[in-house]
Amino acid sequence: MDTPMLKLYFAKGSCSLASHVALEEAGATYMLERVDLGSGDQRKPDYLKLNPKGRVPALLTDKGVLTENPAILAYVAQAFPQAGLAANGDSYAFAQMQAFNSFLATSVHVAFAHDKRPQRYADGEAAAQAMRAKAPAALAEYFGLIQERFADGRPFVMGDQYTVADPYLFVFERWLKGDLGRLADYPAVAAHHARIAERPAVRAALAAEDDQ
Amino acid sequence: MDTPMLKLYFAKGSCSLASHVALEEAGATYMLERVDLGSGDQRKPDYLKLNPKGRVPALLTDKGVLTENPAILAYVAQAFPQAGLAANGDSYAFAQMQAFNSFLATSVHVAFAHDKRPQRYADGEAAAQAMRAKAPAALAEYFGLIQERFADGRPFVMGDQYTVADPYLFVFERWLKGDLGRLADYPAVAAHHARIAERPAVRAALAAEDDQ
Repeated sequence: MDTPMLKLYFAKGSCSLASHVALEEAGATYMLERVDLGSGDQRKPDYLKLNPKGRVPALLTDKGVLTENPAILAYVAQAFPQAGLAANGDSYAFAQMQAFNSFLATSVHVAFAHDKRPQRYADGEAAAQAMRAKAPAALAEYFGLIQERFADGRPFVMGDQYTVADPYLFVFERWLKGDLGRLADYPAVAAHHARIAERPAVRAALAAEDDQ
Repeated sequence: MDTPMLKLYFAKGSCSLASHVALEEAGATYMLERVDLGSGDQRKPDYLKLNPKGRVPALLTDKGVLTENPAILAYVAQAFPQAGLAANGDSYAFAQMQAFNSFLATSVHVAFAHDKRPQRYADGEAAAQAMRAKAPAALAEYFGLIQERFADGRPFVMGDQYTVADPYLFVFERWLKGDLGRLADYPAVAAHHARIAERPAVRAALAAEDDQ
């Protein structure tokens, strides 16, 4: 079996949880390194050498550093094919999973970022308030679309197959439970959240992040 | 050879050009359907039935509809392997390409969107102005990172291999030539732009979009 050397740079409460869970689900051997966003670790020279974008997650492999959840998630699925975390042999089904992950990254995550990190997009408190005011409507639109996706009653983002898209969605389901929306307004999404939360890999990843 | 039935929904001047060029480079047989964003075609019921997100590109295949550039680009590379548009057999190199495409989608495109479509992120002219004011600094940071990527003098995003990441970057190089920055400030990126502009597939795609 191919066992690449892996080290995941994560931040507690951040979207890096998706990549963390994927590594757990894959049965990968990996190390964990916490990046404390509150202390600005992600802007320190050592971390910028690793990831000049100053974001998490970053996955150190024996070939180099991978960044961006959608890329890391697909990598884990491809590098550990025996775990069955994507439709690896089917380019159409793989692309559907990637389209969902890309939607989470470009729309859902970006909507949350306008609430949590508005200074990324505009200066000044008035602009920040305007962005925070709009984020719930954007999230309502996006979670409405996700709810429709589950209309057929199947358990996972890709239907009957659990894939790396599921822990990625799980991150944003957790976030929605905060001030920006009510997960319970989207019953099928809430059911997905509960289903994923019970997985041993998810429990293990959350426990490991708490211990760091 | 596998020849899926394909129809690309594109908008002139939009990021769908990346998927269009990829289809040309792949030697795919496909139809083109213009979506007029100015007339609001993307919000009309027929289009929303196809892509409920109301965005371009959308690629109709004989299995269903694919959306999101990063997903469509990887799909084209995988569905037409003989065109060599990605390191299909190498999960690490494939992930590096995907990380770049994801960065374009989540950071570079999103920065442009704050200038072009600020109403997506906040209401009111003051907030729109604040977002427009910040976009050039974000783009300067991102194009600075891209410039560093080309520091080794190799011609393409992935080094010596032309991949679907190249036409995707080409889209944003074109956009940067507008009011938001000077492509010439990033000489290696400008050289990449010139190199990609000369490719027959790029010329063909641009000419086809002009004819629609």
